[in-house]
Amino acid sequence: MFGRIDHIGVAVTDLDAAVALYEQTFGMPVAHRETVESFGVEAVLLDVGESHVELLRPVSDDSAIARFLERNGPGLHHVAYATDDIEAALERCRAAGLRLIDERPRRGIRNSRVAFLHPKAVGGVLTELVQPAAH
Amino acid sequence: MFGRIDHIGVAVTDLDAAVALYEQTFGMPVAHRETVESFGVEAVLLDVGESHVELLRPVSDDSAIARFLERNGPGLHHVAYATDDIEAALERCRAAGLRLIDERPRRGIRNSRVAFLHPKAVGGVLTELVQPAAH
Ligand SMILES: [Co+2]
Ligand SMILES: [Co+2]
Repeated sequence: MFGRIDHIGVAVTDLDAAVALYEQTFGMPVAHRETVESFGVEAVLLDVGESHVELLRPVSDDSAIARFLERNGPGLHHVAYATDDIEAALERCRAAGLRLIDERPRRGIRNSRVAFLHPKAVGGVLTELVQPAAH
Repeated sequence: MFGRIDHIGVAVTDLDAAVALYEQTFGMPVAHRETVESFGVEAVLLDVGESHVELLRPVSDDSAIARFLERNGPGLHHVAYATDDIEAALERCRAAGLRLIDERPRRGIRNSRVAFLHPKAVGGVLTELVQPAAH
């Protein structure tokens, strides 16, 4: 159902410091930077193999990332798996009885279509399904 | 420095239930199962693209995973990046002033050589370097 780990989502307080660490010390090139208003975040994608590290800084107080940082501090926030057909993947999760956060896909970073499964349905792991935009 | 995300480490309480979810609902084939005494865990690797999901159940009370489960409950525990030369990667991290948990590589799952960076050095993300065994 999933072709790869699309990215790991990491909540950060200092985005530029995080980019410097991943880009300079870990040698991961920056692939994209975008503010995704609907999620209240500024995001930076860095390449690692077929996947990305997605660094996320909150740009509004009521964003999920802002709440996460308040509760946990910075760190691993979610994992995202890539799919070619997000409707079919969501339907399969629904049929398996998994609790969804997004009943229908939403627009994500780089015009991707994304949907989150509830962490309670996935052993405490906030899990995102991603169908990248057709390039 | 890192060729790919080698795996994401997920702490679980019920390993078989987690394997069933990832294998049957998410369609990730089980690649390997092993008890790694030195880390006090039973681990299952499932394939997803060039990466794995590494499900971890504690087999001893004093294991890091047992402590994590007590503090946080099940969920995302760490991320691991693959390297062809773990000594060079560790040296580069040391030179960049990053705090290490393992000064020298240890034996990991499937005869890999692994070393952990301290989460405080990586914005709260427990980060593992992995040099897979030469197959
Ligand atoms: Co994401
Ligand atoms: Co690991």
